[in-house]
Amino acid sequence: MKLNATKIPIRVGKKYIAVLNEKRAHFLDLHAGDRVILKKSRVPSIRAILEITDNSELKETEIGLYEETWEKLKVDNYGEDVEIGIAKKPISTTYIKEKLNGKPLDAKKINEIIKDVVNDDLSDIEVSYFVSGCYVHGLSDKETADLTRAIVKNGSQIKFGNRIVADKHCIGGVPGNRTTMIIIPIITAAGIVMPKTSSRAITSPSGTADTMEVLANITNDAPKLKKIAQKAGGFITWGGGVDLASADDKMIKVRHPLSLDPQGMLLASIMAKKFSVSSNHVLIDIPVGPQVKVKTKKEGKILKKRFETLGKYLGMKIKVIFSNGDQPIGNGIGPSLEAMDVLKTLKNEPDAPQELREKSIMMAGLLLELCGKARKTRGKAMARRLLDSGKAYEQMMKIIKAQGAKRTKLRPGKFSKIIKAGKAGRITGINNKLIAHIARTAGAPKDAEAGVYLHKKIGATVTKGEPLFTIYADIEERIGYTSQYPLNKAYTIK
Amino acid sequence: MKLNATKIPIRVGKKYIAVLNEKRAHFLDLHAGDRVILKKSRVPSIRAILEITDNSELKETEIGLYEETWEKLKVDNYGEDVEIGIAKKPISTTYIKEKLNGKPLDAKKINEIIKDVVNDDLSDIEVSYFVSGCYVHGLSDKETADLTRAIVKNGSQIKFGNRIVADKHCIGGVPGNRTTMIIIPIITAAGIVMPKTSSRAITSPSGTADTMEVLANITNDAPKLKKIAQKAGGFITWGGGVDLASADDKMIKVRHPLSLDPQGMLLASIMAKKFSVSSNHVLIDIPVGPQVKVKTKKEGKILKKRFETLGKYLGMKIKVIFSNGDQPIGNGIGPSLEAMDVLKTLKNEPDAPQELREKSIMMAGLLLELCGKARKTRGKAMARRLLDSGKAYEQMMKIIKAQGAKRTKLRPGKFSKIIKAGKAGRITGINNKLIAHIARTAGAPKDAEAGVYLHKKIGATVTKGEPLFTIYADIEERIGYTSQYPLNKAYTIK
Repeated sequence: MKLNATKIPIRVGKKYIAVLNEKRAHFLDLHAGDRVILKKSRVPSIRAILEITDNSELKETEIGLYEETWEKLKVDNYGEDVEIGIAKKPISTTYIKEKLNGKPLDAKKINEIIKDVVNDDLSDIEVSYFVSGCYVHGLSDKETADLTRAIVKNGSQIKFGNRIVADKHCIGGVPGNRTTMIIIPIITAAGIVMPKTSSRAITSPSGTADTMEVLANITNDAPKLKKIAQKAGGFITWGGGVDLASADDKMIKVRHPLSLDPQGMLLASIMAKKFSVSSNHVLIDIPVGPQVKVKTKKEGKILKKRFETLGKYLGMKIKVIFSNGDQPIGNGIGPSLEAMDVLKTLKNEPDAPQELREKSIMMAGLLLELCGKARKTRGKAMARRLLDSGKAYEQMMKIIKAQGAKRTKLRPGKFSKIIKAGKAGRITGINNKLIAHIARTAGAPKDAEAGVYLHKKIGATVTKGEPLFTIYADIEERIGYTSQYPLNKAYTIK
Repeated sequence: MKLNATKIPIRVGKKYIAVLNEKRAHFLDLHAGDRVILKKSRVPSIRAILEITDNSELKETEIGLYEETWEKLKVDNYGEDVEIGIAKKPISTTYIKEKLNGKPLDAKKINEIIKDVVNDDLSDIEVSYFVSGCYVHGLSDKETADLTRAIVKNGSQIKFGNRIVADKHCIGGVPGNRTTMIIIPIITAAGIVMPKTSSRAITSPSGTADTMEVLANITNDAPKLKKIAQKAGGFITWGGGVDLASADDKMIKVRHPLSLDPQGMLLASIMAKKFSVSSNHVLIDIPVGPQVKVKTKKEGKILKKRFETLGKYLGMKIKVIFSNGDQPIGNGIGPSLEAMDVLKTLKNEPDAPQELREKSIMMAGLLLELCGKARKTRGKAMARRLLDSGKAYEQMMKIIKAQGAKRTKLRPGKFSKIIKAGKAGRITGINNKLIAHIARTAGAPKDAEAGVYLHKKIGATVTKGEPLFTIYADIEERIGYTSQYPLNKAYTIK
């Protein structure tokens, strides 16, 4: 049936969507979510997902085309003829129903689903049924490995031939944990490729991507990233800026409304990011603590086992370590404050945060050993040498330059407030979550200079009135907003 | 933050949706599916669901408003200021996650979910997670009753005080099963109110609504329907044309893409339609047969038990019967052909299909007994008298007139093809599904006159070459299209 094209002047971020008036849809026996074939004369036909509207300005004789569809069909003028035909649902909808019914999926079926997710041939509703199936019935290790491969296969990839490629990952939740920006300079200084895609903060005051963005451009496409890695040995870029795992981004969109995090999907999401940049030696840090993602060692051990099994399936060398998640690692929390900590550490300045320095050296050492660059137990010393000698700093400058340098002079927010100890004693606890809330309320990560700077860490003794931490903001009122939190309860002093 | 309103000229059938450019959304820390508060000066603020678009004609300084939102905010001109603020997710999203986690929901929580479904405060993605939860974990009898009440409570209702109100329901799958249109005239002729909402065909050649539509207008709102029932004692209307159970319609839209039919949702959907028109005496017919929805008596018995328990929870008198689902009930299949069968039966014409007549009398009799109008075992005789005396026919004319009469002269399609017996013998089977496919391919229910007319039923003996059935169509080619099916296999002759 021929209908008159009418443009809906918006991009939906989905491939192709067509809209029919309800009466026309009823006449054609079509329902919302059905697949249709659209054909304009002398233009190749396209598959689209159907939406239905009632009582609209869209007439029965018209077909509404969102911008992407309008362009793909090369429609020039309102009213041009577009032929509509009925198309079959993708076979992947059958596999999604199988998963929802509790049946495990094989590699072929998982790949078919992910291919259709990437090609936007599955609607949000259908993808959410896939997420439901994975959430309720879980994903086996094999399914998780197959999902990882499918995500990688259906996205861009950066390849480094047969080279050893290192990566590290931290299961989040610890503020100021910017080891990545110190480990990468050390590892690349040792001559190992380390291409790192990081995430922006979602609920935290800063992600590695946000902190790196203070220093350098973090949005690069895959060919550009390959060149950067060839030039500087590695990069620290924003994963969302490159379509390395676009299936994952599309699934996250659907998981977001109910915060559904099926463990298999989380693992596949992490591993696909490594796999897509050809990483084959990966160190995974699981901080354990009451206020981070992994609360107990027991929970951590289950996760460790899953990572190790997944590594075997994917042919990756994996080492998993547990670390202390009790308090922030660096002193600064918020993009600029964290970037300042990182530069101090790389420059070996005396007031560099010691936990950040030592944790980075320890992790870089293990990674050097995992990659066979250092003999067992000798990695840490090698890492320390690379840092102390200034080679890691040089390396970081090279990476920043290759990505595109930004400001070099860093400063904290213009407005500040110091929180002082209410009594003398020994600091026995710092409330990670509360500190993170305060930093976000002060403006981080949107205002890069906003955040919190910790003057004292667990174990230190303080006198009454001694500064515990400073809140920074670039907008004066935001300092006031932080009073909604019990600021004097961020530290436990005994 | 103030943004410039821009209209997206389409109705989405959802209450309020606003669209932001991706960069603006990132700046505001907003994600697709988040809830926002929109406020225009001197107009009450509204809640909306957020969509996000990238690389669009929508600028960072703009907010896209679909027609419903544009109108509700009383925006007159492009570029007017609209203030956007962050709103909380509805609490019902928490309950949906609970159900997905396998936790049973209480009446309050179910009502909250359904209220938000009706108010479009839940996105399609969120509703599909609710469907997933119900599909994977099932709904207990109590949950099903609570869901029924919630659907009714959050829609229009038609009330008839303390009167006895009858209804009947058939678990579908049997073609030409138009008993409803004979039972209602009989029951209302006995002075019992019988308000019936029916469905259109989805995959069958005709639903009761499609067949009734040949004779009368079937789209009426709730106040009009109440008047019709007061005047004529009952009605046969299209359920989709009146918002008696609009939550149900919205959930069906989300269930459609994967054909997810959680049993509890199906039962609640059926019972809500009865409950919303105040029915309190309901006869349920479960046809059993290899080619209908319920394949075995065992399956039927489980369903019977669920209906009976649900009736107790809802304070309804329920009687469940099993019937033979082996072959079509009437002779005609398709809207007009079925309407002709119905009128022949009501007019007591000699060539009225006997199975349709007898099944209708049997069911009407049971319903008269259930309603206390006839003593046990005497209902059938009373029903037969009401039909034979012409009172049921008079009653049907009254109902048709009250709803708005349409054509009175009925005819089958202009083009036809007779399928003849390939050999002599006794008919032992008729393939319901195949007959339904043939009738749909011929044009039913879109072309009201299209369909199939059966000359012979199971048990009859035929000679070679004797007509078995005729295919009717209003568009000549459609007769040809039916040749894709093995037409000579529709009947089994032994």
